[in-house]
Amino acid sequence: MRAAIFNGPRDVTFGELPDPAITDPTDALVRVTLACVCGSDLWYYRGAAPHEPGAIGHEFIGIVEAVGSAVTTLAEGDFVIAPFLYSDGTCEMCLAGWPAHCLNGGGWGNATGGGQGERVRVPLADGTLVKVPGSGHSEGVLRSLLALSDVMCTGWHAAVSGGVRQGSTVAVVGDGAVGLSAVLASKRLGASRIISLSRNPVRQAIAREFGATDVIAERGDAAVEAVRAMTRGLGVEAALECVGTGESLSTAFRIARSGGMVGAVGVPQHDSVVPVQTVIFRNVGLRGGVAPARKYIPELLPAVLSGAINPGLVFDHETDLEHIAEAYAAMDERRATKSLVRLEARA
Amino acid sequence: MRAAIFNGPRDVTFGELPDPAITDPTDALVRVTLACVCGSDLWYYRGAAPHEPGAIGHEFIGIVEAVGSAVTTLAEGDFVIAPFLYSDGTCEMCLAGWPAHCLNGGGWGNATGGGQGERVRVPLADGTLVKVPGSGHSEGVLRSLLALSDVMCTGWHAAVSGGVRQGSTVAVVGDGAVGLSAVLASKRLGASRIISLSRNPVRQAIAREFGATDVIAERGDAAVEAVRAMTRGLGVEAALECVGTGESLSTAFRIARSGGMVGAVGVPQHDSVVPVQTVIFRNVGLRGGVAPARKYIPELLPAVLSGAINPGLVFDHETDLEHIAEAYAAMDERRATKSLVRLEARA
Repeated sequence: MRAAIFNGPRDVTFGELPDPAITDPTDALVRVTLACVCGSDLWYYRGAAPHEPGAIGHEFIGIVEAVGSAVTTLAEGDFVIAPFLYSDGTCEMCLAGWPAHCLNGGGWGNATGGGQGERVRVPLADGTLVKVPGSGHSEGVLRSLLALSDVMCTGWHAAVSGGVRQGSTVAVVGDGAVGLSAVLASKRLGASRIISLSRNPVRQAIAREFGATDVIAERGDAAVEAVRAMTRGLGVEAALECVGTGESLSTAFRIARSGGMVGAVGVPQHDSVVPVQTVIFRNVGLRGGVAPARKYIPELLPAVLSGAINPGLVFDHETDLEHIAEAYAAMDERRATKSLVRLEARA
Repeated sequence: MRAAIFNGPRDVTFGELPDPAITDPTDALVRVTLACVCGSDLWYYRGAAPHEPGAIGHEFIGIVEAVGSAVTTLAEGDFVIAPFLYSDGTCEMCLAGWPAHCLNGGGWGNATGGGQGERVRVPLADGTLVKVPGSGHSEGVLRSLLALSDVMCTGWHAAVSGGVRQGSTVAVVGDGAVGLSAVLASKRLGASRIISLSRNPVRQAIAREFGATDVIAERGDAAVEAVRAMTRGLGVEAALECVGTGESLSTAFRIARSGGMVGAVGVPQHDSVVPVQTVIFRNVGLRGGVAPARKYIPELLPAVLSGAINPGLVFDHETDLEHIAEAYAAMDERRATKSLVRLEARA
């Protein structure tokens, strides 16, 4: 099949990979219609994290082409969202709300086909895939459904982990697709003040569209001062860390109010250090990490279908599968916030 | 007045300090009846943290001797518990449930008299002191009321921060007075399994009395293995860190289940490092720190008065004020879990 192929750092190409096929009775085979490039794919692209050569990509939506004999909730032709990890939905960790730690789960790769390819074998399909009701969804809704596969759920997890609720004062560190999604999530959760840290005019505009009440361009000490000045010197109740560097984590802790929370979803880099003195002496908590996307997708799906939220606005670049290299390059060079990869022409 | 005097590391003596007097209309003057030595006092005693020479101590109960003209809820003769910090109860931080970060608050010291002395001037008395109803309380209840001034609230904060609730599986790292209080707190919050990490027979017995279902003597790697073996390999939902060393914090993160919480109240030492990879990739959160004692005391007071909880069992050593040096030495040498200091003879 046609697919993106990871050959090594800065070398993602379009090519041919073996067609996946159903191997277990709990599998489904999905034909991918829309995929995208994740910020975490960039770490592989940049050589900052290892990745096996071959299939790549973990965010996709598509159509079920076939199901194994033990699959009971899905059928050929179903339109589905795949979370960025597969999970059984029945183990103790899944039942506790942590599908990313499913005792039988795993991720996409050469054994399944990657999300940036024509077809994916989805293990534990009943537990993993979320069926989308209805048909004839608009292009805008389709893009937002794609966003539910990872980025919107990750932004949502930042906000939930940060304890955002009705009336909260929030700051979001990071204006990438995840940070923007965290703004949208905070708005949806009822935050009354949402400060976005961004210096990019395109992203500032999306942040405002998503519900940011304030946008500040400052970084480091200046950002801390600016946020404190906007919050009567107290800082914010929820500081959402959506970058993953040591500086961004430090900024998040410094702009958090005593008794507040840092909701952190940025993949941590080697220089990330949690200021334990702040945790203890200022009672600033830390929670976050890998989002339980499979838990959140059904919760967010109705809001996407009704148009109440439009997380697909984070996609500001598009290629077809043949131009996957450009999809990566555009994000790497910061020409794109997030690249959408279209596998099938619009209906 | 007669008081403990901090002269420098390993030099706490009995002596005379100036009598405190009401200076602000919101002050109350309290005659201390029972006081105690805090684990954090030991850091000063050991030279691990700085302390101003003079008055020392921040855990006490006593009788109101006089009130300033603006004090409305207290009167001479009232029996009161003092939290380990004073707070107004009316500022934004107090109203948000974080009295330890009161915008007008502070701690005990030379300006007020220390808790280990005959009298203390209590600023912002209406916001700070908690009046104890009734009279003729038993010795056991009195000791437990004293425990509410700090140690029980700190243990409670560990459990609350760790998200302990009905049915939780909990492990408590640390068998000092705070760790034992965290066991009691976990039991009170409904935990169904409470694993205490302790190798001291006296403390093991208190842990069991407080509700520990399991006691393990292992430390480090062996402790991690033991806890995992007891929890089907998953670890505990709440790991309560009540020591403050790098090793104990590391142990807490390692025994925590993915998606779980570390509730940390140990005063962090220089080698304390939060494993951010665990926070992100295993979704183990971290919360805790300085307890909002003034918030918790009224919540816990009825349970102490009814005898439902007996946090005063942590006191296993007693001196009078004249022998304050021995109160410190006994804790420093680990002959005592926690030293009670009696300022007035039993009724």
